[in-house]
Amino acid sequence: MARDPQHDILFEEVPVGPKTLKNRFYQTPHCIGAGSSQPGFQAAHRSVKAEGGWAGLNTEYCSIHPSSDDVMRISARLWDEGDVHNLRAMTDEVHKYGSLAGVELWYGGPHAPQMEGRQTPLGPSHYNSEFEIGTYCKEADEDEIQLLQSWYVEAAKRARDAGFDIVYVYGAHSYMPLQFLSPYYNKRTDAYGGSFENRARFWYETLEKVREAVGGECTIATRFAVDSLYGEEGIEVERDGMKFVELVDPFVDLWDVNIGDLAEWGEDAGPSRFYRQGHQLPWQKYIKQVTGKPVLGVGRFTDATKMAEVIRNGQLDIIGAARPSIADPFLPKKIEEGRYEDIRTCIGNNVCLSRWEIGGPPMVCSQNATAGEEFRRGWHPERVPEAESDDAILVVGAGPAGSECARVLMERGYVVHLYDQDEKIGGHLNAITENLPGLAEWSYHRDYRETQLQKLVKKQKDSQLALGANPLDADSALNYGADKIVVATGSSWNTDGTNALTHEPIPGADASLPHILTPEQVFAGNKSIGKRVTILNADTYYMTPSLAELLASRGHEVTVLDGVGMGTYMEFTLELPNQLRRLHELEVEVIPESWCSRVEEGRLEYYNLYGEGSKREYKGPGQSPRAPNQSHQWHEFDSLVLVTGKHSHNDLYRRLKARKSEWESNGIKDVYLIGDALAPKMLADATFDGQRLAREIEQPNAQWPLPFRREVAVHGHPFNPESTRPDYKIVYQGD
Amino acid sequence: MARDPQHDILFEEVPVGPKTLKNRFYQTPHCIGAGSSQPGFQAAHRSVKAEGGWAGLNTEYCSIHPSSDDVMRISARLWDEGDVHNLRAMTDEVHKYGSLAGVELWYGGPHAPQMEGRQTPLGPSHYNSEFEIGTYCKEADEDEIQLLQSWYVEAAKRARDAGFDIVYVYGAHSYMPLQFLSPYYNKRTDAYGGSFENRARFWYETLEKVREAVGGECTIATRFAVDSLYGEEGIEVERDGMKFVELVDPFVDLWDVNIGDLAEWGEDAGPSRFYRQGHQLPWQKYIKQVTGKPVLGVGRFTDATKMAEVIRNGQLDIIGAARPSIADPFLPKKIEEGRYEDIRTCIGNNVCLSRWEIGGPPMVCSQNATAGEEFRRGWHPERVPEAESDDAILVVGAGPAGSECARVLMERGYVVHLYDQDEKIGGHLNAITENLPGLAEWSYHRDYRETQLQKLVKKQKDSQLALGANPLDADSALNYGADKIVVATGSSWNTDGTNALTHEPIPGADASLPHILTPEQVFAGNKSIGKRVTILNADTYYMTPSLAELLASRGHEVTVLDGVGMGTYMEFTLELPNQLRRLHELEVEVIPESWCSRVEEGRLEYYNLYGEGSKREYKGPGQSPRAPNQSHQWHEFDSLVLVTGKHSHNDLYRRLKARKSEWESNGIKDVYLIGDALAPKMLADATFDGQRLAREIEQPNAQWPLPFRREVAVHGHPFNPESTRPDYKIVYQGD
Repeated sequence: MARDPQHDILFEEVPVGPKTLKNRFYQTPHCIGAGSSQPGFQAAHRSVKAEGGWAGLNTEYCSIHPSSDDVMRISARLWDEGDVHNLRAMTDEVHKYGSLAGVELWYGGPHAPQMEGRQTPLGPSHYNSEFEIGTYCKEADEDEIQLLQSWYVEAAKRARDAGFDIVYVYGAHSYMPLQFLSPYYNKRTDAYGGSFENRARFWYETLEKVREAVGGECTIATRFAVDSLYGEEGIEVERDGMKFVELVDPFVDLWDVNIGDLAEWGEDAGPSRFYRQGHQLPWQKYIKQVTGKPVLGVGRFTDATKMAEVIRNGQLDIIGAARPSIADPFLPKKIEEGRYEDIRTCIGNNVCLSRWEIGGPPMVCSQNATAGEEFRRGWHPERVPEAESDDAILVVGAGPAGSECARVLMERGYVVHLYDQDEKIGGHLNAITENLPGLAEWSYHRDYRETQLQKLVKKQKDSQLALGANPLDADSALNYGADKIVVATGSSWNTDGTNALTHEPIPGADASLPHILTPEQVFAGNKSIGKRVTILNADTYYMTPSLAELLASRGHEVTVLDGVGMGTYMEFTLELPNQLRRLHELEVEVIPESWCSRVEEGRLEYYNLYGEGSKREYKGPGQSPRAPNQSHQWHEFDSLVLVTGKHSHNDLYRRLKARKSEWESNGIKDVYLIGDALAPKMLADATFDGQRLAREIEQPNAQWPLPFRREVAVHGHPFNPESTRPDYKIVYQGD
Repeated sequence: MARDPQHDILFEEVPVGPKTLKNRFYQTPHCIGAGSSQPGFQAAHRSVKAEGGWAGLNTEYCSIHPSSDDVMRISARLWDEGDVHNLRAMTDEVHKYGSLAGVELWYGGPHAPQMEGRQTPLGPSHYNSEFEIGTYCKEADEDEIQLLQSWYVEAAKRARDAGFDIVYVYGAHSYMPLQFLSPYYNKRTDAYGGSFENRARFWYETLEKVREAVGGECTIATRFAVDSLYGEEGIEVERDGMKFVELVDPFVDLWDVNIGDLAEWGEDAGPSRFYRQGHQLPWQKYIKQVTGKPVLGVGRFTDATKMAEVIRNGQLDIIGAARPSIADPFLPKKIEEGRYEDIRTCIGNNVCLSRWEIGGPPMVCSQNATAGEEFRRGWHPERVPEAESDDAILVVGAGPAGSECARVLMERGYVVHLYDQDEKIGGHLNAITENLPGLAEWSYHRDYRETQLQKLVKKQKDSQLALGANPLDADSALNYGADKIVVATGSSWNTDGTNALTHEPIPGADASLPHILTPEQVFAGNKSIGKRVTILNADTYYMTPSLAELLASRGHEVTVLDGVGMGTYMEFTLELPNQLRRLHELEVEVIPESWCSRVEEGRLEYYNLYGEGSKREYKGPGQSPRAPNQSHQWHEFDSLVLVTGKHSHNDLYRRLKARKSEWESNGIKDVYLIGDALAPKMLADATFDGQRLAREIEQPNAQWPLPFRREVAVHGHPFNPESTRPDYKIVYQGD
């Protein structure tokens, strides 16, 4: 299939100051957990996208000075020559593909908790962060404003030395220049506060100085949240945003514009649960009215026609993307070649950025299991090693892990049968995306694998999608004729209330009863659900908030008895604030910090987790701290939903393993267990499991992953004079 | 002063299997944020304690296999030869002082979230963690039990190769061996589950195998929580603990015994808020009844007389310590030399371990500002560089930052005047430790500095403690005769409700009114407090929970209007669960996720943070998302306490800075601002500020810290053939 000519506009060059973007696809700065301390990870993750056709590639936010230290979260840093050296790896690799490398110079003020550098951050006024509540900044006096600006300049010079083409002054997400601009933070009464022009002064002076230092050599960009969504207490696009762009325009070669703040930056990186492609355009579109410089913006753009339209109708010049570039590093190339059906569309569940929020772990992606694994495991998103044998492989279960495993195995050239009782691949994702509010786009995960598998089985006549098949017992599996069997049979919610708090069932909780349901039974719709629904929650991701929303929006009176904190992981995916608003609107009642000791018909007994008798202390026989000796309360319901825990479907695997002695006679070399059937896990990790096994299936003990490359400091040994590594010699002050 | 002869017993040798501890002081495994990836930090932090007299030094918990991966939290690792190389730095340094080096082999099962290695952990049964709710393990079959045990053995061999003398199989804090032992986790029905002996099998087999591999060369230790404090659902010391020790004793050279689990491990690392020295003895004391092997245990032992008594009365053989060894790495040496008054006694606020809980940052300590700074800044806890000039330094403010700064400056040999209006050094800590429930031991922070400063001014006739002095205005400071002035004048709680949510005062909130109080006014006791007290909370550390407890225990009806999550940082210091129990018991009412828009006499107006109108979206003029257009509610009170935010006392500094032109004529070279006066911060960071400036005061711009050494991977450059560093070459599978 050839490229749709209306998409040609996306492949036009865009001059940006002294440099030129080779097309309109641009990976905006986004976090991956590499920074300047894991240069291999940084170089590989960005350059694979350069190879995939992105014209501009940025690192994550990059600290300009130790007083902007975000540890536990991982930023890049340009503090010293070591950082220059390390980041050079990324710029060199990106340049190999004719793309531009960019870096976003960042000063956090009190939003950075300073737990490594332990310095006190500066800010326009004296306040503590609404994001990191315990961190206060010092109000910079005029000397300190100069100092702060000099840090931007020094970092910009290091950026240039490291080979960066594009240097940002980062003012979105409530970082320093915006703290000066916004009256929400800036309470100064001197030349840097008060009037709009005064509040803008810090930003344009900084840009001016950075431009003086590296302009002409580097493209000067700025990232600007054109509307804080606070009303007049912050920045409003029509009142301030456009005015600011006009004022500062002479110092800027490239505008990167978004909306929102830091405390709720899900308004920018909008999860698909709440936001569609291009959701920021109603604000972004104003900017081109006041500048002739190129304007770029994000909006989870994944559809080429939408992108072309946004360019054509003059809303943006360049398509910014973070998440879509993670889900498919080859998105531009696939559009360029008209391979639309090969695009792995971002599902917008925001698991990628959840790892930055947590702090420390490498980024993961649900759609692209190779994301973050480029360097350490040598996984390329579009290339796989050739099959090393003609083994025929049976994959049982076509959910996220099984379908990914089968897909990659087929890509490698293996003969694969993908076996499932369901007519449709997708596993548990099908019911979730069909039923739960806002999760429809998560089905792109299934769609990609479905399309690819259908293409692959057409090409490889011996491979097969055995869908809508009979249940597969151990006998049939043994006799199937496969050389290797991969069991990917998923997991279900517990029917008896077994949960992480007690590791036991809840007496009386039994989903075979008419008034008690698992989430799957809610989806199936075979049981009638009464007016008053109670959900027992011992899960920290999306199921309870989603079911509460679903049932309340259908008119049920919903109560959640919450044992573990509802939807706490959704804070990391930026879904929580709006989800809480939705539940508040629907009058969902939450009984917090409580757990259920017993269920009877129409009522349950519960206790407060911190109530009388809950203290960890010496207990006499017959007493339990899990259902402590305290006043229990009763709560009535018509229907009860158990979101208490999951269990793997591993029967087939266990039966096969028990009959290991019969493998050889049946020609079976090995049997593997992956995904939720191994243990329930997040979608990204189930997908990873499938990809991982498919890439390593020739290994002697392929059930367990190969070691990965680790990027850690290795010092020379002080007693080994031949060591060429930097020495760890301990030197104390005063010695 | 000579050592008290009753303490001599602490300096007896203790044979532990094939090795011998040179005395009874033993640093148990504890986290610092170094692991095997920051070998310099690891080596320096442990060896400085060896120098200080500790006979045994351990790393933090050490992962045996990538399927036990605790990222975001930092563990040591013995996965490969690189780890062996890196940890060798620590063992070599420790051996220089004749001490033993130990390592705690760790497998977490589902308590480790596997966000880096992305493997599925094994466990005795199939469950998810009550600590990491989203992580499930696979039930290990018998093959996998063998595999798991082989990982312990391989790691033990690597430990030996790295030079470790003591090798632990770690079963406390609910990690793997205990998961097999405890019926709370183990639901198996085979030879590894069911009866006590079966549940113990995994542990003793593992010990047996590890002993076979490295016994004779290394001391085999095990760390065992002898009582889970769960009653019969877990381990009970008299029922199971003693029995287990008897059963396993032949395989163990050294017993390290504690209590509790992982989800509430504050029962082990008991904060001083709830627990005194030796609080675990009622359980630990049973163990020596059933073993002749040496037994050690922790309990925040800081008092030599108590330690000697515990040894003498046969409760323990060895004094285990984590926190006391951080607060004073030279604790043993100071006892040995009879220098009791020089001991920096651990205050038990648990800020050290809070950084492990957060994940990522290096450990800090409130008492010992050099903790974690040994390698990167070259700070020795007992040695400071000599003064480089005869500058006389005026330190204004004798709180945590000022008293530490003055102390270190005097240690260095500078002439210092420490100036404060208060009669007593300690600053805001005085009122806190005198008034707030459970915080009395935090006053050790002041006591150490008070004692040292008094000793120092006796020795240095020109230095002076100018306490109970008149307020110091800019004129007096300029004329004081100092060469340098350090302003450390602290901070106060806001009197007008200014807070992190709105960055504005709250209309009507005014602590000059009789019914509205700041925390300081509550302490001062000059205002009468009514029956119904409401606390406005926009702070995430200890103030609101402490005041709520204080006032409720005095008989007030206390309500907290909570804008930010009450005491959330206390989760990291392990203080929260018992604090929540205390507040529950005292019937403190919390209105969650709400904030105050207006205060009137006897009532306040508030709104739900996720209520109607709170959505971040385009706002018309005059609307604010901070006090959104939604139904407000009213709440009545007799007295209102404002825990809304803090502000620095920096008037003196600002006035001095404004008169910079007069410095030279007054002989003043520079003026500095530190501690809370720079910006409100945690006690540990205020103390750090004081130490840091005192060590770097000769630097040209000493207000800003010198760079610190960073231990990050630096790869060779692929295009530089002369590079001797490991190459970052990107190699994709399949290429």
